This record gives sequence, C-alpha cells and structure tokens, in this order.
Amino acid sequence: MRSNGRKADELRPITIRTNTNKYAEGSVFIEVGDTKVLCTATVDERVPPFLKGQGKGWVTAEYSMLPRATQTRNQREANRGKLTGRTMEIQRLIGRALRSVVDLHALGERTVTLDCDVIQADGGTRTTSITGAFVAMAIALNKVAEQHSLKKFPITDFLASVSVGVVEEKAVLDLNYDEDSTAKVDMNVVMTGSGKFVEVQGTGEESPFSRAELNDLLALGEKGVLDMIGHQKEVLGAIADKITAAAASNKEA
Amino acid sequence: MRSNGRKADELRPITIRTNTNKYAEGSVFIEVGDTKVLCTATVDERVPPFLKGQGKGWVTAEYSMLPRATQTRNQREANRGKLTGRTMEIQRLIGRALRSVVDLHALGERTVTLDCDVIQADGGTRTTSITGAFVAMAIALNKVAEQHSLKKFPITDFLASVSVGVVEEKAVLDLNYDEDSTAKVDMNVVMTGSGKFVEVQGTGEESPFSRAELNDLLALGEKGVLDMIGHQKEVLGAIADKITAAAASNKEA
Amino acid sequence: MRSNGRKADELRPITIRTNTNKYAEGSVFIEVGDTKVLCTATVDERVPPFLKGQGKGWVTAEYSMLPRATQTRNQREANRGKLTGRTMEIQRLIGRALRSVVDLHALGERTVTLDCDVIQADGGTRTTSITGAFVAMAIALNKVAEQHSLKKFPITDFLASVSVGVVEEKAVLDLNYDEDSTAKVDMNVVMTGSGKFVEVQGTGEESPFSRAELNDLLALGEKGVLDMIGHQKEVLGAIADKITAAAASNKEA
Amino acid sequence: MRSNGRKADELRPITIRTNTNKYAEGSVFIEVGDTKVLCTATVDERVPPFLKGQGKGWVTAEYSMLPRATQTRNQREANRGKLTGRTMEIQRLIGRALRSVVDLHALGERTVTLDCDVIQADGGTRTTSITGAFVAMAIALNKVAEQHSLKKFPITDFLASVSVGVVEEKAVLDLNYDEDSTAKVDMNVVMTGSGKFVEVQGTGEESPFSRAELNDLLALGEKGVLDMIGHQKEVLGAIADKITAAAASNKEA
Amino acid sequence: MRSNGRKADELRPITIRTNTNKYAEGSVFIEVGDTKVLCTATVDERVPPFLKGQGKGWVTAEYSMLPRATQTRNQREANRGKLTGRTMEIQRLIGRALRSVVDLHALGERTVTLDCDVIQADGGTRTTSITGAFVAMAIALNKVAEQHSLKKFPITDFLASVSVGVVEEKAVLDLNYDEDSTAKVDMNVVMTGSGKFVEVQGTGEESPFSRAELNDLLALGEKGVLDMIGHQKEVLGAIADKITAAAASNKEA
Amino acid sequence: MRSNGRKADELRPITIRTNTNKYAEGSVFIEVGDTKVLCTATVDERVPPFLKGQGKGWVTAEYSMLPRATQTRNQREANRGKLTGRTMEIQRLIGRALRSVVDLHALGERTVTLDCDVIQADGGTRTTSITGAFVAMAIALNKVAEQHSLKKFPITDFLASVSVGVVEEKAVLDLNYDEDSTAKVDMNVVMTGSGKFVEVQGTGEESPFSRAELNDLLALGEKGVLDMIGHQKEVLGAIADKITAAAASNKEA
Repeated sequence: MRSNGRKADELRPITIRTNTNKYAEGSVFIEVGDTKVLCTATVDERVPPFLKGQGKGWVTAEYSMLPRATQTRNQREANRGKLTGRTMEIQRLIGRALRSVVDLHALGERTVTLDCDVIQADGGTRTTSITGAFVAMAIALNKVAEQHSLKKFPITDFLASVSVGVVEEKAVLDLNYDEDSTAKVDMNVVMTGSGKFVEVQGTGEESPFSRAELNDLLALGEKGVLDMIGHQKEVLGAIADKITAAAASNKEA
Repeated sequence: MRSNGRKADELRPITIRTNTNKYAEGSVFIEVGDTKVLCTATVDERVPPFLKGQGKGWVTAEYSMLPRATQTRNQREANRGKLTGRTMEIQRLIGRALRSVVDLHALGERTVTLDCDVIQADGGTRTTSITGAFVAMAIALNKVAEQHSLKKFPITDFLASVSVGVVEEKAVLDLNYDEDSTAKVDMNVVMTGSGKFVEVQGTGEESPFSRAELNDLLALGEKGVLDMIGHQKEVLGAIADKITAAAASNKEA
Repeated sequence: MRSNGRKADELRPITIRTNTNKYAEGSVFIEVGDTKVLCTATVDERVPPFLKGQGKGWVTAEYSMLPRATQTRNQREANRGKLTGRTMEIQRLIGRALRSVVDLHALGERTVTLDCDVIQADGGTRTTSITGAFVAMAIALNKVAEQHSLKKFPITDFLASVSVGVVEEKAVLDLNYDEDSTAKVDMNVVMTGSGKFVEVQGTGEESPFSRAELNDLLALGEKGVLDMIGHQKEVLGAIADKITAAAASNKEA
Repeated sequence: MRSNGRKADELRPITIRTNTNKYAEGSVFIEVGDTKVLCTATVDERVPPFLKGQGKGWVTAEYSMLPRATQTRNQREANRGKLTGRTMEIQRLIGRALRSVVDLHALGERTVTLDCDVIQADGGTRTTSITGAFVAMAIALNKVAEQHSLKKFPITDFLASVSVGVVEEKAVLDLNYDEDSTAKVDMNVVMTGSGKFVEVQGTGEESPFSRAELNDLLALGEKGVLDMIGHQKEVLGAIADKITAAAASNKEA
Repeated sequence: MRSNGRKADELRPITIRTNTNKYAEGSVFIEVGDTKVLCTATVDERVPPFLKGQGKGWVTAEYSMLPRATQTRNQREANRGKLTGRTMEIQRLIGRALRSVVDLHALGERTVTLDCDVIQADGGTRTTSITGAFVAMAIALNKVAEQHSLKKFPITDFLASVSVGVVEEKAVLDLNYDEDSTAKVDMNVVMTGSGKFVEVQGTGEESPFSRAELNDLLALGEKGVLDMIGHQKEVLGAIADKITAAAASNKEA
Repeated sequence: MRSNGRKADELRPITIRTNTNKYAEGSVFIEVGDTKVLCTATVDERVPPFLKGQGKGWVTAEYSMLPRATQTRNQREANRGKLTGRTMEIQRLIGRALRSVVDLHALGERTVTLDCDVIQADGGTRTTSITGAFVAMAIALNKVAEQHSLKKFPITDFLASVSVGVVEEKAVLDLNYDEDSTAKVDMNVVMTGSGKFVEVQGTGEESPFSRAELNDLLALGEKGVLDMIGHQKEVLGAIADKITAAAASNKEA
C-alpha cells in the first residue's frame, strides 16, 4: 500500500469529458487525480513550409501551465519572453508521440495542433496531456475524415501514456506530486493500443537503476497504459471502433 | 428584443463557482454566457521593489487567453516572445480597477496577483475578468485578514464591470461577440457597490457618438454593474457582509 | 484660480509649427505649455497584409518619449527589448482616434504612419500627440489628395484631444505634470469638430467618481477640444477649409 | 555487416585528447568517427541562488553546434535570439547525466559548467558530448580535490553514453548520421561504470517498437558504454584510479 | 568646388543651442547643415556595478534616430526588439570618445549618460553627436563641479569630430548624405583641442585607399575638428575657459 | 625587446591549416600565437532580399567566441538572447573587409558566409579572423569558379589584417592579450596585397595619440599585413597564383 492508499499498480481516478470547448474541432477536459488538463485540437487546412507540396499532413503540440496550477505561483512564459526548456521538451514529446499513430498521408495537407493547458498540476502532467490530447485529436480527425470523405481513417492505433517510478525502493504506477518529488527513478512510457512502445524516457538522476528495476517499471507502464486506453475507448464510443478497425487492418498489412 | 432574444438591459446568464483551484488563496470560475474565465488570487508576503518599506501592499493582475478560447486559434504570447498591446492594456485595467477598492495600507506589505485566464471567449472577457477577479480577491483577502488578524478589513467596497455598446443604433448591455463585432460604439464600465465610477472607457472608432448616446450607455452600465454585484454577494456569503460593513464605514468617514 | 495661475477651463499656451522635417510628408512640432511633441506623418503606398486587396487604406501611430523628456531619465524601450504597456496603450489610442476621422476607402490602399516623439513631457503627452498628429496627417493627406487626384477628400472632420481631471476636489482642464500627479480622477477626451466623442477614458484609481463629476469633466473636455481645434484651423489655412467642407458634406449625407 | 562496414555492436574509431584549452580547468577534444566535440569544464566558486547556503555544489551543461558543423549551415541560436528546443533538451540531459555521478556535498559550494561545442556533427553528438564532458569534468574536479584538499573524491563512478537504434530492421550500436536519419527507432543510453542506467531515452516516432526490440537495444547500449568507459580510463590515467576507488567504496557503503 | 558649392575643406553652417531641455543637467540642440541632433547629459550619483568602490566615475552614450529622420522611414529599434549593429557601433564610439577627455577620478563615483537623438539626418550624424554631446557634457559637469566643489575640473580637453572622405577622387570635409553615399573612402576623425587623435576610423569598402590619400584625409580632419572646437568655445563661454585652463595644466604635468 | 621576447615588428608564430571541416565549401583553422580561430566559408546560391535580381553576389561574416575561449568563462550570446555590441562591430568589420576584395558581379547571385569561431583567444581575434577567413573564402570561391566556370576569378586581391598598438610608449606589432590590456593606443589595420588600406581603426581611449605615433603604427601595420599575406600564399598554392593574376590584371585596368 502506498501512502495515498493506492496499490503499486493502481491508477488515480480518471475522468475524461469531451467537447468542452465550443470552438475547437476536438476538445477534452481530463482529470487524473488532482491533475487537470484542457486539451483542444485545432485543424488547419495548411501545413508548415517544410512539408508543402508533399501530400502529407502534420501533427504538433503546445503545452503550458496556468501560473497557479502549482503550489506556488509560476511566472508566465509570455512574461519571461521565452519558453522554458521543460516546456519545450514536453511539447516536443507530445507532438512526437501523437504523430506516431497518425497516417500523415491519409491526413492530407492539414495540420493538427494539440494545445494542452494544465489547469491544475499534481504529477504526471505530460502523460495526462498525451492521453487527453489523443482523445481530442481522435474527435477532430473523425470530423475531418467525415467532412472530407478521407479514403483511409488517419489514426492507426490508440495511444496513451503513464508515469512510473521507484518510490521508497518500490516500483509504482502513476505518481502524484508528492511521490514524484521523492522518487529515485522517474520514467514516462507512451504506448499504443497494440502494446508497442512509442517513447520510453527513464531518468535516474538521484540514483542509477538496474536492468531489473527497469524491467519492473516497463511492466507497470504497460499495464497502466492499457488501463488508460480503456478509458479512452469508453468516451470515444463509435470513434473508438474506427480506430480499432484501423489498427487491425494495419496489423494485417 | 435583440437578435439573441435578450432585452436591451439584460445580462447573459451568470455562474460564479468559487474555490475551484486547490492551491490558490482565492479562486473562481466565472461564466457570463459563453465567456468563461478562471480567476485565481495569489497572496505573496512581499511587495515590488518600488513599494518596499512603505507599509502598504500592492494588487496586480495578469490576463491571458488560451489559444483556442476563440473561433480561430491564436498564437500563444509565450511563442511570440512578448505580450500584445491588447493584453497589456487589459491587465493594466484589471489591476487598476481592483486597487481602487483595496485599502493598501490595511493590506500591509503583501502583493495580491490576480490571474485571469480566459478559457472561452464570447465577448466581454475583460469585464468578466474584473467581476470574477474581485470575488477571488475577496476570498483571498478574507483569509489574510483572518490569519494575520488585520485591524481593518482591506476591501473597501464591491466592484464589478460590464460592457455596453451601440448595436444597430440601440444602446445595449453585455454584448456577446457577434454584437461586439458590429457595434459602432463600445464601452466598458467599472463601478463600485456605492454606484461610483472607477473606469469609463468608450470608443467610437467606427462612428463618433453624441453626449446623449453616452448618457444612455452610462445608465445601462450602472444597471448592469449592480446586477453583477448581486451575483457576487450571493456567492460570497459572510464575506459579502464584511465588505458591506467596510463600505458603510468608509462612507461615514 | 489654480496653483499655476490658470482658470479651471483654461488651456496652457499652444504653439503648432508645421513642416519642421524636410523628409516627412507631413510634420508638426507642437508645444502645449512645456509639453513638446514632434509629429511626423509618413505615407506608404502599401497596406498591412490583413487589408490587402480591399481597396481601403490604414492609419497607424507610434509613440515614444526621449529618455530625458522627463525629470528623471527613462530607460530606452529599445534597450529593454520591448515596448512598455503604457506606450502600447497610448499608440493604440492615437491610431484609433485618427482613424475615426479618415475615410479609409477614399484614402485608397495606402498607409499613413504617425510618429509622435515626445521631446519634453509636462503632462498631457498623449492628448498633445493626438492634436499634433491630426495636423501632420492633414498636411500629408492633402498632398496625397492632390498628387493622386483623390475623388473625395479623405479626412471627414477635425479631431483634437485634451485631458481633464479632478484636482483638489475641482474639475480642471489640461493638467500639467504637477496637477496630474495629484489628480484623483484623470480623463482623456478625444472629440471631432462636430462635437462628437471618439474616445472617453476616465480613471479613478485613487478615488471613484460620481456621475455629477463625470458630467463636469465631459463639459470641460468639450470646451478644451474646441479651443484646440481653433488652433489647428489657424495653422492649416486652406487645408482647414477642405476639412470643413468635407465635414459639412458628411453631415448632410 | 552495416553499409559502413561496421559490425552491429561496433563503435566508430574514438580519439580523446585532453587539456586542449589553455584556460579551462578541464578540457577535452573528443572524436567519435567524424563527430567532433570540444568539451570544457569551468569551475566557479559559487552556486546558483537556489542552492546557496546548503553546503552543496552544482553541475550544469551547455551545448551548441557551430553553424557549419552540419552538411548545410545552421542559423546561430544567438541570432535567432533564443535556444531551440533541441538544444535545451540536450543540455538538460547532459547536466542531469553528469550530476548523477557527482557527490554534490563532497564538491562543496562550487559550480561546474560543462560546455560542449560541436565542431563537426555526424550522428551521436549528445552521447559524444556526455562521454567527453565526463573526462573534462574528471580533470577539473581532480584539480579541485587537490587544491582544496577535499575529504572525499567528488566523482562517484564513471559515466558514458552511446546511441543505439533499429536500422533496416536490425539493432545497431553508435549510429552515424546516415544511419540515424533512416533509423526506425532511436535510443540514447547513459550508464555508469557499475553498469547501471542513468538515462534511457527511446523514440519510435516512425514506428513503435516491441519489448523484444527494446531488450536488444539495451544490451547493445550496455556493451557500447563499457567500451567507451575503457577509452575514458586510458586517457584519465591516475585520475581513473581515483574514480575506480570511489566507485568501489560507494558500492560497499 | 563641390556640387553643393562648398570648398573641399569647408564645413556646413553650424548652430549649437544650449539648455534646450528643462530637466537635463546639460542639453544641446546642434545643427550641422541639415543634420540635427538633440544631446542631453544626465548625471547619476551612482556608477555601474563593475566600477563600484573604485572612487571613479563613468561616461556612457546612447544614440538613436527618430523613425523619420531619414528620407524613408526606419523601423524603431524598440519594435525590432533590439539595437542594430550600426547603433551599437556608434554609441560605443561616442562613449569611448567622450571618456578620453574626462578625468574619471576627478569626476568621482558618478555616471554621465549622453543621449544623442537624431531629429534629422543628412550625413555625419555620429560626428555631430560627438561634437554636440561634448558641449552638453561640459555644461553638466560644470554644474557637478560647482555643486560638489570638485577639487579638479573633470574635463581635460576639448573634443570634437568630423567626417572626411574621398568623393569623385577628391578628399573633402564634412560630407552630407549625397556625398557620403557616393564616397569611395569614408573616415571619421575624433580629436582633442590639443590636436591629438582619439579615434580614426577609415573604411574603403568600395575601393582601398593609398597612404597618400590617408594623409590628405587626416589633414582635412584636423582642420575640421579645430573649426568645430571654435564653435564649441563660443557657446560654452566661461566654461570654455575652465577647459582651456585644465588642458594647459594637463600639458604641463 | 618586448616582455614576450619578440621584436617590435615581429609577428607571433602562425599556422594555417586548410580543409579542416568535411562539409564546408572552404575551411581553415588558423593559429596566431595562442589565438585560435576556426573559419568556414559557406556558399549559398541565393542573395539577401535587398540584392535580388541585380546580378551580383554578397559576402557576409559572423563572429563568435566559445564561452571558455578566454581566461574567465563568458556567457553565451544565445543565452543572453542577443549579440553584444562588440560582436556586431567585429562581424560587420570582417564582412566589409572581405567584400573589398571580391568582385560581386563576377561572383554572381551567390552569398558567401564566413563563420569565424574563436576557439581560444589571446589578443587579435578580429584580425586573425580576417586573415583566416580570407583563405577559407579563397578556397570556396575557387570551387565556385571551377564548378560554374566563372568568366572572371571573383577575388581581386589578397587581404590580411594585423593589430598594432602603443605599449609602454613603444609602437609594437601583433599584440597578445597581456600587451593589449595595457596598450594606450590600439589599432587594427586591414590591407590588400597591393599595399592599400581597407580599414584603419585606431582608438586612444586611455590617451590620445599624435600624428607621429599614428605614422609609426601604420608603418608597422603595413609590414605585418605583408608578412601575413606571405603565409596565405604558401597555404593557398595554385589558388594564390590565380589571385595574383587577378590583382595584376585589376591594376592594369
């Protein structure tokens, strides 16, 4: 049992509300414990300059925290005049992760921008952002697929992310802020519905970790991601079926 | 009757939810029609350099819109590397307005920062921010007053704001985005619970306005602000009584 | 009588010198008391991207103070790397005000940029800038109208601005720096030659103001603007006649 | 055999020249194939503000590429006015990795800054930087230990890094640029001399990877890092012995 | 005879008006032909951090051009967010030149900032700035010397500057913009009242120049600077006598 | 004899290694004493906007110092967010100097960018950069001339640069850092192979200099540049012959 009463492989309570924004092509308000993130997907009928004329699309992400998402107030990056390294790192990760399950040729010359704005932070904001942004993107791309009668559904598989870590010498799933700040090893895992890894980022700044510990963390991560994907399927309903079908057909090919 | 079914002097439906953030000293989620703003109040036991050692506090505000708060996505100011003129203008207005009802000496050497983050925009984001931020500030300063046993309650009166304008040759209250974008005159009014003006900002870029039109707009603004203050009183409960008492005692003095 | 010997409704001495710059299409050096502003109007045969192909022009303004325009030296904004909120607010106001008396379709696809550089500041720099910039613009647009044989004179009315405020419980016109820094209410009024309001910006940060006080300030502002326009007419000579004619014909229409 | 004639688990030729800079406390010019990085270690007898008075030191890193380190010239980040996300990500990684083998309390209130400047890039610039920076840091901290008679040698273990990846469906070690640009999976591994992981960062943007592939990559990475550490020991001579002794004594503790 | 009717060694008409700014410790409006520069000297009773506690002062300069000082409008550096290389080069030159005739120990721990703002540019703005700034500085330092009863007058000699160049194969003095833009060689000379060089900057980008040409230019520069210093002496009156005395006493020493 | 054992007119030992970078069109690693600079020439088949369609090319330069090129570590300009005035001044000088010996019409619509990165600094980094960049440019333009069969060789003469100065009342050539920091006069001279001046920049901030001193410095500079050009000719081999021929044919014309 952990200090917060959870089992080592237990996620915090999860709520995913969809279509929370009246303007965005896709929108989600996701809560994982006390971590709350607003994810919107914007579809633009253009691609960045480096992709022009190649018949394929792009998926990119931006991440930000409201100043008082955290215990003490953070200075706005707009006031600092530039993004922090942490923000850049996270938004590059989110974009890369989501692109891994999009067929950019099937998408056509369009850009999907995922905005992940953290309303309240209690650990796992980047993994929660990925999990939520996937749902917002699925809603938006389903609209694109219908409106433009895309020949192929542009999402190739489910995608979700969780954090795992070694806290008090024990591997645990989905760390909240208290656990995260005392963890000796901290790892983020992004995986597809087919159980493949898209990103594995483990850091043992405080204390290097053994191969055995790494194996334990990867197993926990795998379980956590599949649980998360269960929640995504529930809220996506009919769209989830299209993704499942697309993933199955990709597997055969 | 307006195109949206409201009477000329009718506000949109208003919801003010308090304590929506687990970390901030005061927090409010305010909805005025489809305009939604998250307001947090952060209290810092320090003042900016220009006030050090004067025995008085400071109140300041920051304002921002999420990229997809609007119909088309806006570039983040953090990416542009600087605030737009519009943002600066608005956050200066919010700060000035709130300071007008705070007794900075009673507050003592503390800074209150009001963060107003627009989650969804449908006209009147600056006036809604002021109305919501007042409530968040009241909650935060009530805590300060209790924890530090302030001799005098540091808020001197209620404060709220509404927009008014001339749409299709008629003065109307609380414009939504559609009305705002066709208005010939656009005015923001900030007033206290005692019915005094704190800010009057009227612009007739499209068409100059007469003294008679100005008078009509001011009357509408007065009515709207008092309605708004009614909503504030409801959600503030016992804190509202303290403000009412403080305002009465100020009047006598 | 005020501390500086003026009556409540009396402007400071005004001098407007025209064509002070050998390169600019229009230029003015305006002195209102010890406030001195250099205004130049630059005409560019292009419009900003958002207006391209619409057959109409644009008017915009930039405002700056020399470092030693004030009692103590100010850091240059070029060194800070960005404009202050105050500067942005002022230059947005100047641009908006001047556009209100320009027929952008009659102007055609051209941009007029008004540069207002404060050489010395003693209160009222933004209102003096508007009054001076109007004259510089009139000179420049008269040249455009002649050189390009515009069908319609592109200026639709006179425009000037003054500050008013409540100093020592009395409403006064055209505050100098000493008055401004002790004023309880501070208001800027921009009006046309036809006596209509273009901008009304009143602030009672130190002390909210009543409707009666507002009425007094508006009356003083109206008087002050008409006095200012008298000075503009004098220096504009034949160009003033064209504006008067244009304003009359607009009124009929 | 790979297209470049190397076996799957074979590093490129490695040269590490020490003391190449006459001013720096530690300096290294490291070549791994055609990737060439200049690493300098600067010791400053102060710590950043957030660590003041805690009796411990800090290790940080900066990374940059000369404009023509690559096939086509890159714009200088100093001209762009800010660091790219890639640069921030890499220098945060280098700093974190090196801190993992420094006993910050033994170091005392000092900051070591590792500058990694890529003179020529042919894949693996971040891993080469870590491997080279470790040697520069060891030289610098050996001087600190001697000059200040530190009670405990402040480096706790060896540290090196290699890249591994899946190229043409085969796991290979130490990818050059050509391999890297066609790799389906790309992973950087940072390990200590004791064979523990400090950082594992694997990305399958182009194609998610299975647990089996991940295992193969980790095994290759382990071998590569140990080879790299062999080179470090050779050039460090007597300093290497001190590190070996420190690592052994840490293990016992 | 030159195209503008001047002889090769003839300056343009010069006007130097002093005390043009009511706030600055020293101020000058200098006109050299159609080049017009406003120079103010600000004295601050502090020195920059790198000089603290050394018992000596500092002299620094800032240079800027109003947007419409030139034929076509220039973008403000405050809008670009940074100074151009040209501006930096010029203000470094002005500061260096003025420091060469100030006894920083006699000045004491004070900073003099010279602001040179070009109101209208017709060639030679940097040399005109130096000549004008010297006068503004002399006025300001004379006040400092009197108010603080400095033991030694802090200015050690006169200082002025002119441009010279090779135009149509002939060496000429004090080029206006038309001459400057066709000059094959362009040189700025800064000299003291004692006829010594402080700065010599010659550029033959369009066409390298021989030693003989260089000699001709230096001779013209020498004459021009002495003429300029004649004008300075006239407007400085009694202050000029103090400088003459200081220069004479320095020579003896 | 100087403190470092050199005669007044003696250069430090010079090494110029060519083709040190596998990607750049031209590259040089130049060492003048302990000053070490990496120079690369990049050829781009485009010109900047202001030159488009004029049938001529452009030559530009960028200069930077590695953080630990100097005794104490310098902050990276990329972290400061902007270039220092010193850097801007130097890179403008390098570009101007090199353009003076390039026939931009013969070059055609191409841009050559010279990157001068100082690896270690011991005085004279700007003059060493010019001397090294000339060789890198010659190698690059020789390739351009061959690949594109240019009708005329685009380099018109040799070009090199040295520093001279007055140290302990004596004019000396090629100052190292120790000499430079105590020099009363500091001058950089750029000259062509034909013995003409391209740039002369002399500064006597610490102490103005006489015409006689200036003459001595110019004579030393002339000798030093010719020595430098001797080294350039050696490493350029056959390319040097082409430049010599071009210079001779220019002289006749």
